[in-house]
Amino acid sequence: MTDITGANYIGFSKSKLSDRNFQSFSPKDNKDIPGWFYWATEDELDKAVLLADRSFRAFQKVSYQQRALFLETIAEEIMALSDQLLEVCVSESGLPVARITGERARTCNQLRLFARLLRDGWWLDARIDTGIPERLPAPKPDIRRMFVPIGPVAVFGASNFPLAFSTAGGDTASALAAGCPVILKIHPAHPGTSELVATAILKAAKRTGMPDGVFSALHLDNEKVIRLVSHPAVRAVGFTGSRKVGLLLCNAAAARKEPIPVYAEMSSVNPVILLESALQENYAKIARELAAAFTLGAGQFCTNPGLILVTESTATDLFLEEFAKQIAKIPPANMLTCGIQQVYDEKIKGLSENPAVVLLAKTETEAKGNEGKPVAYSVDANDFLKDKSLSAEIFGPQTLIVKCADTNDLFEVLESLEGQLTASLHAAEQDVEIIEKLITITTQKAGRIIFGGYPTGVEVCDAMQHGGPFPSTSDSRSTSVGSAAIYRFARPVAYQDFPDQFLPEALQNKNPLALLRLVNGSWTNEQL
Amino acid sequence: MTDITGANYIGFSKSKLSDRNFQSFSPKDNKDIPGWFYWATEDELDKAVLLADRSFRAFQKVSYQQRALFLETIAEEIMALSDQLLEVCVSESGLPVARITGERARTCNQLRLFARLLRDGWWLDARIDTGIPERLPAPKPDIRRMFVPIGPVAVFGASNFPLAFSTAGGDTASALAAGCPVILKIHPAHPGTSELVATAILKAAKRTGMPDGVFSALHLDNEKVIRLVSHPAVRAVGFTGSRKVGLLLCNAAAARKEPIPVYAEMSSVNPVILLESALQENYAKIARELAAAFTLGAGQFCTNPGLILVTESTATDLFLEEFAKQIAKIPPANMLTCGIQQVYDEKIKGLSENPAVVLLAKTETEAKGNEGKPVAYSVDANDFLKDKSLSAEIFGPQTLIVKCADTNDLFEVLESLEGQLTASLHAAEQDVEIIEKLITITTQKAGRIIFGGYPTGVEVCDAMQHGGPFPSTSDSRSTSVGSAAIYRFARPVAYQDFPDQFLPEALQNKNPLALLRLVNGSWTNEQL
Repeated sequence: MTDITGANYIGFSKSKLSDRNFQSFSPKDNKDIPGWFYWATEDELDKAVLLADRSFRAFQKVSYQQRALFLETIAEEIMALSDQLLEVCVSESGLPVARITGERARTCNQLRLFARLLRDGWWLDARIDTGIPERLPAPKPDIRRMFVPIGPVAVFGASNFPLAFSTAGGDTASALAAGCPVILKIHPAHPGTSELVATAILKAAKRTGMPDGVFSALHLDNEKVIRLVSHPAVRAVGFTGSRKVGLLLCNAAAARKEPIPVYAEMSSVNPVILLESALQENYAKIARELAAAFTLGAGQFCTNPGLILVTESTATDLFLEEFAKQIAKIPPANMLTCGIQQVYDEKIKGLSENPAVVLLAKTETEAKGNEGKPVAYSVDANDFLKDKSLSAEIFGPQTLIVKCADTNDLFEVLESLEGQLTASLHAAEQDVEIIEKLITITTQKAGRIIFGGYPTGVEVCDAMQHGGPFPSTSDSRSTSVGSAAIYRFARPVAYQDFPDQFLPEALQNKNPLALLRLVNGSWTNEQL
Repeated sequence: MTDITGANYIGFSKSKLSDRNFQSFSPKDNKDIPGWFYWATEDELDKAVLLADRSFRAFQKVSYQQRALFLETIAEEIMALSDQLLEVCVSESGLPVARITGERARTCNQLRLFARLLRDGWWLDARIDTGIPERLPAPKPDIRRMFVPIGPVAVFGASNFPLAFSTAGGDTASALAAGCPVILKIHPAHPGTSELVATAILKAAKRTGMPDGVFSALHLDNEKVIRLVSHPAVRAVGFTGSRKVGLLLCNAAAARKEPIPVYAEMSSVNPVILLESALQENYAKIARELAAAFTLGAGQFCTNPGLILVTESTATDLFLEEFAKQIAKIPPANMLTCGIQQVYDEKIKGLSENPAVVLLAKTETEAKGNEGKPVAYSVDANDFLKDKSLSAEIFGPQTLIVKCADTNDLFEVLESLEGQLTASLHAAEQDVEIIEKLITITTQKAGRIIFGGYPTGVEVCDAMQHGGPFPSTSDSRSTSVGSAAIYRFARPVAYQDFPDQFLPEALQNKNPLALLRLVNGSWTNEQL
């Protein structure tokens, strides 16, 4: 068993300087969990950031092989936390143990994916243009370019993925892979889980000889959060959470003397478009799957399908009938925190009081404690277009059906939406013209387009894009899931006319890392 | 001969709705050039942006081959402007005809580089992870990802490169290559040059069947500039100019309801580090070359070496003596505008009145009209560290030598600097330890590091990185020169479980574009 001490971790050292503390809370038992966690002081925060900055130079010199080993060892140490981690995490999140077990596997796989990326090395985007000293009117210099780490990164643990988007989650894994030290802001909804995972990261850091300061984990109140994002030594921010907090961080970063990139994943309703042709073929299957998708994990996913667009037809009526039946059967489930549950109830109440909105279906089971009730509403396209508030995300097991008269109406609704993480199309393949138009529109609106499926379940792979136009994320050029997430924490540097011995290995003539490189316009694994 | 009409170009249409106008000015003759240019009205601006937005959908469907042909045809049409373009550009910029001829070649080469990139296609970063329907506990979806254009881009013509960083310069070329329509803000220092080049772009657009609105060029006053950057349909901004204006644009973009990326290249002093070992070997050669480098083009380059770091030694004394002799021989040259010349004189005056600063050398030739006088000052490292104003860029043929007691002193000076486009190291290769330390520091400070050379002369190639930490640019993850500049105007989109026929060609099984793609973790040109 690993001790949960409630301390802040400043590199390898524990620190509890403040007498201000808080308790973790079990949303399932609806009560505090014994033990205290200590808010970090300004001094503790500054110490952690300065240590991260100091460790940066040593960390960026660690070989890619050794960095890969560090990530794999973190995965190993997380698994070694065994049942204790599952129990603490289930207790703090209210999520079922099967989900947490799956999320732990995903977290470890993410770490291994980045380890593989470091071993492959192509992500460095090594480019070499050799010189032509005799060129006229001026000699052509030798230029070589690759990605280097951006510097210390502030990572914000997310409440809805207490493992996969928190302490050793995608942001931490990609920042460490890039060569950037991480200062983690622990999410107060799962501080015990975070401390356990932090100890796993630090054990792995020691075992693989990483410098002190490569990882710190702190309990930060709102004021310290702004101090963290504003600290001159912090070079980038990774965040998943609410639009309000995301924008606060973006503004703080933009107001710095030296602005830094913020990768904030904020809000998305993930429209699902159901064309008549798809419903004719499969209305019952789609109704069943979609009801399961929007209530999965009490609807607490950034990719929750919160908006369903349909056109008027008999098939649509059949779908809605079956959809309502399915929803009635789905039991309420625990939400992550009391606060999230209360906000959910308030927003549902607001929606139900909107005169344009009609209740389609709700769960037949009574909700207890902090459970969120599955519910679906519907609204006519014209009313939806008039009321911007209806396109805002409601975090929980809720979805809104927008009834369009025809596909032109549907195009208009789609065009009216803000940027989205995802958009999903259900259509029979013979609807070529409509499908092509929908792809054109959704390509501009979303980061990922799904054909015949649902947005929940974000595959961790090289081709994943989890990041869409504002406000789904603050930076549509980035992804927070998949191997391309590493580019959030890297910047290119070019070396001109360097003697081979002073070049980074990735750019040396002999290609000692056996990388795929762009040499004079062609990609090759060869040496020069 | 092509008519210079003074109109705004809203796509293929000319428009002069305002009665507010201005004249172009010849800095060499110190007088207005006959003819009037008309400031765009709000209506004209909005019309151009909406036309760009409308053209976007058609433009992004143009094949990469056809887009490449468009870029090559622009180069062809620029060459067809022949001597008229050279004459107007020389007259408006005050730059010598040889320089403008070279810059025209560079401009055309840039366009051809992006055409080549479009034909090669690897820049799309096509990634495919094929599905595993039988995977447990959940099927693995098929995910495919590539870059798509970000949308209409506002490009600001730069005064110091009236061709290569203006109307059809690097920003325009990379935005068009990415598939983004361009709205150009014409630089008022070379409006005639801009109109000529705009007609070349529009002729090429017509010849290659591009949609109306793919390119517009407007005369915008300060108020309209903010309106342009704030327009909801504008999706990104490319800018090269002063720190003041750059920050204004960044702030306007951040204040939008939906913030957009601004790629602003703002200010850099481009430190050149001269170690004793290099000066012992080559002091006379370095003195001659460096004097030529900082006065080239009247010092009006973003990569001008405005800061020279030396340590105390006999070799340094010999270098400074020779450097002074060289500077004395260099004649003053025309500056781009009266305004730039006046600011230069004021800043030089301010520097000369600083009690810590000593005049090292100046040109022996009297400056006439709008000429800028080559001049070098020196300052002790301790005084330099105390006075932040000494590390600010002075745009013109000026450089400041910082005299350090030893290399530790030099490291400290280097660490004190803000972000830079470039840093240059001159050292004998046996100084291994010092060189490695300098590389570590400069890698964090600059976008390009030059060994034994000078920062002026930015090679246009795949491996170029022209973009460093703030404030040299607003976004150190981007480059404004070289083929990687295209990524400023692109974002990735993933397609999940798509039927092959609805995928973009770049991601289809048969690989019809014969692209290098990342398929299940390996790069391959094969089809699936």
